[in-house]
Amino acid sequence: MAAKIIDGKAIAEEMRQEIADQASQLKLEVGLAPGLAAVLVGEDPASATYVRMKRRACEKVGIESFGHELPADASQEEVEELVRELGEDPKVHGILVQLPLPDHIDEESVLNTVPLEKDVDGFHPVNIGRLTMKNREPLFIPCTPHGVIELLEQAGAKFEGAEAVVLGRSNIVGLPVAMLLLHRNCTTTICHSRTKDLPAVTSEADILIAAVGQPEMVKADWVKPGAYVIDVGTNRVDDVSAKRGYRLTGDVDFDEVKEVAGALSPSPGGVGPMTITMLLQNTLRSAQRALL
Amino acid sequence: MAAKIIDGKAIAEEMRQEIADQASQLKLEVGLAPGLAAVLVGEDPASATYVRMKRRACEKVGIESFGHELPADASQEEVEELVRELGEDPKVHGILVQLPLPDHIDEESVLNTVPLEKDVDGFHPVNIGRLTMKNREPLFIPCTPHGVIELLEQAGAKFEGAEAVVLGRSNIVGLPVAMLLLHRNCTTTICHSRTKDLPAVTSEADILIAAVGQPEMVKADWVKPGAYVIDVGTNRVDDVSAKRGYRLTGDVDFDEVKEVAGALSPSPGGVGPMTITMLLQNTLRSAQRALL
Repeated sequence: MAAKIIDGKAIAEEMRQEIADQASQLKLEVGLAPGLAAVLVGEDPASATYVRMKRRACEKVGIESFGHELPADASQEEVEELVRELGEDPKVHGILVQLPLPDHIDEESVLNTVPLEKDVDGFHPVNIGRLTMKNREPLFIPCTPHGVIELLEQAGAKFEGAEAVVLGRSNIVGLPVAMLLLHRNCTTTICHSRTKDLPAVTSEADILIAAVGQPEMVKADWVKPGAYVIDVGTNRVDDVSAKRGYRLTGDVDFDEVKEVAGALSPSPGGVGPMTITMLLQNTLRSAQRALL
Repeated sequence: MAAKIIDGKAIAEEMRQEIADQASQLKLEVGLAPGLAAVLVGEDPASATYVRMKRRACEKVGIESFGHELPADASQEEVEELVRELGEDPKVHGILVQLPLPDHIDEESVLNTVPLEKDVDGFHPVNIGRLTMKNREPLFIPCTPHGVIELLEQAGAKFEGAEAVVLGRSNIVGLPVAMLLLHRNCTTTICHSRTKDLPAVTSEADILIAAVGQPEMVKADWVKPGAYVIDVGTNRVDDVSAKRGYRLTGDVDFDEVKEVAGALSPSPGGVGPMTITMLLQNTLRSAQRALL
């Protein structure tokens, strides 16, 4: 039986339409659009591309986007001063500090400068602390983990009592997604590069999240028949037949796993479009909280 | 083969001797003892007992203890004002707010008032956030989870690649202990009341932490032969033959499990004495950080 393919692009598109409607209603009611400020330090081309994509996505749904660029040799104080100014700007409801920052910058200290109520990335230590603890609500849920949950919900996954396995333990995906699954009453396992027998662990999962950054690592025999599988990986692999000389692929061997899983989100086209969507949603919510 | 019994009392005693030595050395060097302030709101007898035990333990190792009691109807502002004053008192290196607080008090807001560098309980949301994330060090590790790890280390448990299962997901034990095991490269599973087949999950564990508050729930067939088992539970069960009419027992059926486990910490006499010891150690470290 072939898996149901979870179409992240379509789900994201529908959510963005809803966000656009609410943003235009907000503007009608209070005369101000939600605003997102993006801070880019240095000239890393991948980071510049991400910021450009996010700003373009903002414009499409009626969220005002403010770009702020600092040179690669900007000082800690300069970066934090900019973030503080944005923190006080009433037109800015969300502040996005594009990571990674240059090596000489203390990342945690910069993130601490983002006011909690504008932390639309959800990476402020207080937000992560609240996300971890039971009965404490973070003001914002980090975007990629939130997108993973949204895909599972829309695909009809049952969380209660399910065995969830998260492959990968990064601060931005693996750890927070594990906490979100746990709070939804999954029995939750986090496995990683030091796990002794990965396929033995992952093949127990009713819900499997792959977030390790290893191209097509998850094979058919790693997956329990009927499982919900979300592929968070986006890896470049060389491909001479491709125009760019490479193609993008997930952490899951799509062709194999789609014959076993009950539902599967592809990569690209699954979690990717959801991440920016959740950023837009967080920014909208922040503006609604501040303005209504 | 009978399990090695992990003697928490003996390990705690040895650590307290070391803490006492360092506290007296600190006093010699800078003329000031480490100081712990305990805040007790209301007259809950169990809470009063805990505070008394902690204060007595302080005195025995040369940590000065300051008791502060507020009536059960104290206002949010009164409690926070007291905590703020203690935050500014240079003789106080650790502030312990005894939980639970009365229902009308916003617990998180009070805990947020404790300065990060005096949060010897480790429950400030920023400390929990740092504990959760990779490559972020909390200033203090919460005492009971830290005691669990210390017992495992002293008993010779190997963390790297081990399957660790945490039974229970409380903010004060289950969740943080799971994060500590994960950071030590265990494959880490959190299970709980909604888990479908608990024995099937726990019997895979090389390291099993029982922290659910269910008397003698963990039976021999829940445990993998040779596993390290730490019993965090302390439950009262009726016992007419006991002088007080009850006896204390852990979450693990000691008599059964000791025949299967490789190492087992009893309760009482395992984690209990370690919790206060870690509080003393956190207070000492805080004083060393502030004074040296």
